Amino acid sequence: MSEGQSLPSWSDGAPKSAILDFVARVTKQGGSEFVAPSERVATFDNDGTLCCEQPLQTQFFFAFGRVKDLAAKDPTLAERQPFKAVLEHDYSTLFGLGKQALYELAFATHAGITDEEFIEVAREWLATAKHPKFGRLFKQCVYRPQLELLAYLRDHGFKTYIVSAGGADFMRAFVDEAYGVPREQVIGSSVKLRYEGGGERVSLSKLSELNLFNDREAKALSIGLHIGRRPMLAFGNSDGDLPMMRYAKSGSGARLALLLHHDDAERETAYDREFRLSPLSEALDKARDYGITVVSMKRDWKAVF
Amino acid sequence: MSEGQSLPSWSDGAPKSAILDFVARVTKQGGSEFVAPSERVATFDNDGTLCCEQPLQTQFFFAFGRVKDLAAKDPTLAERQPFKAVLEHDYSTLFGLGKQALYELAFATHAGITDEEFIEVAREWLATAKHPKFGRLFKQCVYRPQLELLAYLRDHGFKTYIVSAGGADFMRAFVDEAYGVPREQVIGSSVKLRYEGGGERVSLSKLSELNLFNDREAKALSIGLHIGRRPMLAFGNSDGDLPMMRYAKSGSGARLALLLHHDDAERETAYDREFRLSPLSEALDKARDYGITVVSMKRDWKAVF
Repeated sequence: MSEGQSLPSWSDGAPKSAILDFVARVTKQGGSEFVAPSERVATFDNDGTLCCEQPLQTQFFFAFGRVKDLAAKDPTLAERQPFKAVLEHDYSTLFGLGKQALYELAFATHAGITDEEFIEVAREWLATAKHPKFGRLFKQCVYRPQLELLAYLRDHGFKTYIVSAGGADFMRAFVDEAYGVPREQVIGSSVKLRYEGGGERVSLSKLSELNLFNDREAKALSIGLHIGRRPMLAFGNSDGDLPMMRYAKSGSGARLALLLHHDDAERETAYDREFRLSPLSEALDKARDYGITVVSMKRDWKAVF
Repeated sequence: MSEGQSLPSWSDGAPKSAILDFVARVTKQGGSEFVAPSERVATFDNDGTLCCEQPLQTQFFFAFGRVKDLAAKDPTLAERQPFKAVLEHDYSTLFGLGKQALYELAFATHAGITDEEFIEVAREWLATAKHPKFGRLFKQCVYRPQLELLAYLRDHGFKTYIVSAGGADFMRAFVDEAYGVPREQVIGSSVKLRYEGGGERVSLSKLSELNLFNDREAKALSIGLHIGRRPMLAFGNSDGDLPMMRYAKSGSGARLALLLHHDDAERETAYDREFRLSPLSEALDKARDYGITVVSMKRDWKAVF
């Protein structure tokens, strides 16, 4: 495929040009901006950047199902917050808890099994669970232009990582199939694990205690811990991604930071500042100052799914 | 190269046969034990498994140089422990501190610079620093049979990781050159990082506070966090590696856990239980129970360097 045919679901315009130009410069052998393949790292947020996050991030639907199971065993749960709000789909009350508290609630419902068991349980759920608005499997509510971009970057020697506030183990259940990203290239929020070495089979069990909530500055810090290398390209869609985008963009040499703006009520959803769980506000206001390229879903993508 | 010519620095014997047999079984298309390349993960300890750790792990020589620099600025340091012991090469006192405390001391001397600056400083040091006994560069005190094994595994679709109690950023300064392992496939001990976003250039600065001491059970737990997949092969040389070896070995399907025994005073060093900083005792006693293959440096390696 010639470069002119790359990224077919991206409309011609500034973001597509910026991507093609950036990749051309850093991969041009002998060019002044050439970067060795081993140093080509690209990091992507997950929810809202690679897949739908409205009305809620996928893993909340999964976790809430688990609350339902727990409530079936203990009916008093339905009278207590935040479980009551979960069971009544009362998003206003849930969003009032704040992003981290809501994730912690979700993670807590996964405690008591091993990481390996958890991934199997999540896989089973993902095999049939459908998005309430789009009617397709959650794991298929992924953006076609982003799949093209991930593949395009890999074709040009980049290692593609997912760096998300979502739970790492939940993402590990589908990222290979959905995005072609291997499990070990997922950096997410996590609960503490406990080493179970008493029996014949050693295993790691998931506890209800948070290990890391991987949002905002934590995204840059966890890239330092896991990858040990500043990304050359970062793609996000909310204020939670701003530190990662700034970290990537402010390194030496050619750099690219991209911000997806959901402005497409017709094909997907239009939202930014008012999404209490994960607003896009500061990043939008400061995109120009930080040299971040804003991608309009409506204008810059020919197709969404 | 035919399989018979693989691992030329390994002597014929049980460990070499176990490796060749294991790799043949899991890579045989259509075989009952075939494992997809995406699931082939091998984890190696670093100090004492891939390179010399006697009389001390390489990074202590580096850190102690830093103490020397600090003492030049503040002569009172030379009167205070543990700095006094460092400056006098008093290993007995230093080992008495215990493994974690000694690593923490080392890490503390690296605080106050960014992770990127640290790797450059370590690279500069490694470019000229020589091992006191072998007279060669530290980064060349790596075991030839292990370089062959790492390459052999990669040639057969394995992703090779280093999982060490050593500082991740220090290892990141040389693992690519020394072992062909990329920086992002290093899991080690770490200090906390701080996000510095005040200026134009965002950076991550290293603090003196420990984030994780990656030894014993922590090795298995950090594999869960970083890789999210149980290794199929694990190679270690001390009790600190035993949980990782058991974790790898006790999974389903074909598995291999290997333990290097330093019993070669002539070509390298002979030590096990008495090395206070990182003893090999329990792992040696229980190797048979856990199905761990013991590799004798003297008997199983034709060449060391």
